[in-house]
Amino acid sequence: MVLSKQIVLKNYIESGTPTLEDFEEKTVKISTEELQAEEIVVRLEIVSPDPYMRGRMTSRKSYIPPFEIGKPISGYGIGKVTKAGSSSKYAVGDYIMGQLPWQEEFIYNSNSPYVNKIDSTLAPLESFLSVLGMVGLTAYHGLKEIGEPKQGETVVVSGAAGAVGQLVVQICKIKGCKVVGIAGSDDKIKYLVEELGLDAGVNYNSPTYKLDLGKAVPNGIDVYWENVGGVVSDAVWPLLNKFARIPLCGVISQYNNTEMEVGPRIEGYLLKTSSKLQGFIVSNYISKNGEALKQLAEWYKSGQIKDRHTVDNGFSQIVPSFLALFKGTNTGKMMVKLT
Amino acid sequence: MVLSKQIVLKNYIESGTPTLEDFEEKTVKISTEELQAEEIVVRLEIVSPDPYMRGRMTSRKSYIPPFEIGKPISGYGIGKVTKAGSSSKYAVGDYIMGQLPWQEEFIYNSNSPYVNKIDSTLAPLESFLSVLGMVGLTAYHGLKEIGEPKQGETVVVSGAAGAVGQLVVQICKIKGCKVVGIAGSDDKIKYLVEELGLDAGVNYNSPTYKLDLGKAVPNGIDVYWENVGGVVSDAVWPLLNKFARIPLCGVISQYNNTEMEVGPRIEGYLLKTSSKLQGFIVSNYISKNGEALKQLAEWYKSGQIKDRHTVDNGFSQIVPSFLALFKGTNTGKMMVKLT
Repeated sequence: MVLSKQIVLKNYIESGTPTLEDFEEKTVKISTEELQAEEIVVRLEIVSPDPYMRGRMTSRKSYIPPFEIGKPISGYGIGKVTKAGSSSKYAVGDYIMGQLPWQEEFIYNSNSPYVNKIDSTLAPLESFLSVLGMVGLTAYHGLKEIGEPKQGETVVVSGAAGAVGQLVVQICKIKGCKVVGIAGSDDKIKYLVEELGLDAGVNYNSPTYKLDLGKAVPNGIDVYWENVGGVVSDAVWPLLNKFARIPLCGVISQYNNTEMEVGPRIEGYLLKTSSKLQGFIVSNYISKNGEALKQLAEWYKSGQIKDRHTVDNGFSQIVPSFLALFKGTNTGKMMVKLT
Repeated sequence: MVLSKQIVLKNYIESGTPTLEDFEEKTVKISTEELQAEEIVVRLEIVSPDPYMRGRMTSRKSYIPPFEIGKPISGYGIGKVTKAGSSSKYAVGDYIMGQLPWQEEFIYNSNSPYVNKIDSTLAPLESFLSVLGMVGLTAYHGLKEIGEPKQGETVVVSGAAGAVGQLVVQICKIKGCKVVGIAGSDDKIKYLVEELGLDAGVNYNSPTYKLDLGKAVPNGIDVYWENVGGVVSDAVWPLLNKFARIPLCGVISQYNNTEMEVGPRIEGYLLKTSSKLQGFIVSNYISKNGEALKQLAEWYKSGQIKDRHTVDNGFSQIVPSFLALFKGTNTGKMMVKLT
């Protein structure tokens, strides 16, 4: 018998900002001695708290079902196989990545389609949760399938210093675009311009934000990558060029609203410019992941893409790190290492 | 010398609903005796007052430039050549269609790329301003390029009894879709259901509009054709299915606003469903007009598409008919016959 801590959702959070009180850390006993066929024991190594998980904390159906109250939350992460039992797929010491429970150690069916083995000799584990994982795929597919940035065009990215944003801006620089990042602090702007080589950065917390954005895009906006929504984007719509493309990846400013926020009706802007606003999730393009990961790995290995992370430590840090996503304190992918 | 009435814009109408006082009917003298090379004399036969023209009555730049104050308004229409001069393209009695001034009789350069000759033996003149003209092309291209309705899918159309709407609903019925029309009166609903064979019609002026729409689309909405915007569309967004497509053709409810209207932020709905909202104007697809007109003519000749018009009469009726568009009194294409 092994004691293992887990994090469960205590109640649905239908609206408003989640707090520590909505989660509970429990200790459970698991018996790892007698494994069933194909069962393995996995120790959680790194957890990826992601904004989309907020949606699973309500009882409303969305593109993935709500979490179950009282059961461990599951999210993207990396675990290490500590017992392989009769598994035909995994050996002790293997790293697996995918949807894993927020639980220190757990029994897992090795036939689950929700995880896959990763080769930890190729890159640091952290990169598999960022540029070489769901985050990288999100940036790649959203640009390839919807944004279609072309050389010389102007791209604006909200949440530019976040996990997906920092990859989007770098891919667009590789494509020869003029890239302007929107972020919430001068430190982040500095990172974007000085370390990632952006053409300009605009701080949405500045009182002159709208003016600053207008000045940063004298030729208008051809691609707007949407991570944030709300008032941050209200400054963007009037600047769209004809045939602008807007990959709609997230609206993190809206996830904790207690009621539907109102804002300017944006259809007129899209109509006037024949622009396209298209929502997507990474799994829409799952059949193209192979080609995408190959390209991302090339860019990463050649140093054309930098991959910064904000790494917190310890199991009890998972919930606070998740909550911090909505304050925008992370630069690059937020993750929590357990060991 | 000939005396000819013309309608000019007296002042820009930056916001609010246009009134009769914003326009002036003037009488001008034109000398038709000595035409320059390629000049012809044209008598205006039918005028097509169109909602998009409201945008040209402000001083703001859009996809087409503003009208010039004091010069005759120009819009889609059909004229008859009364003097052909030395024209190598047109003969007396020919009908030409395109952007023509709101003026009873005028001199025109026959090399203008903005008009073309129509064969009045093929169909009634009115049809060239509807199913066989810009209106038909708008419906055809918007569906083909953005809406992509598939057999068995549910299509909802706002402004369904209007010029473009009545064609969109009929094309979607031909494609084997379940089609629900939104319109503003019970008479229009009756026309849609009884004459055009729609599966249901919903009156947005009914106090139970939102509920009615929900009941009419038990399987959700796969394609939403947007002509209206505002509160009419607010009922639509929560009903979108995964991968919904929204051809954004117009937002007539917004054109006369005195200030930017606010409404629910819609990005969350598009994100959750991976839906696409795309603005367009008919001229984006000009290279495909040939194929489109061929198909529209086939449907029209075979009786698969009916083409209803609201026809007013007389030159002085042009402005009142234009203003009536924003009250939604017309069923089918609004036009004004002068002779």
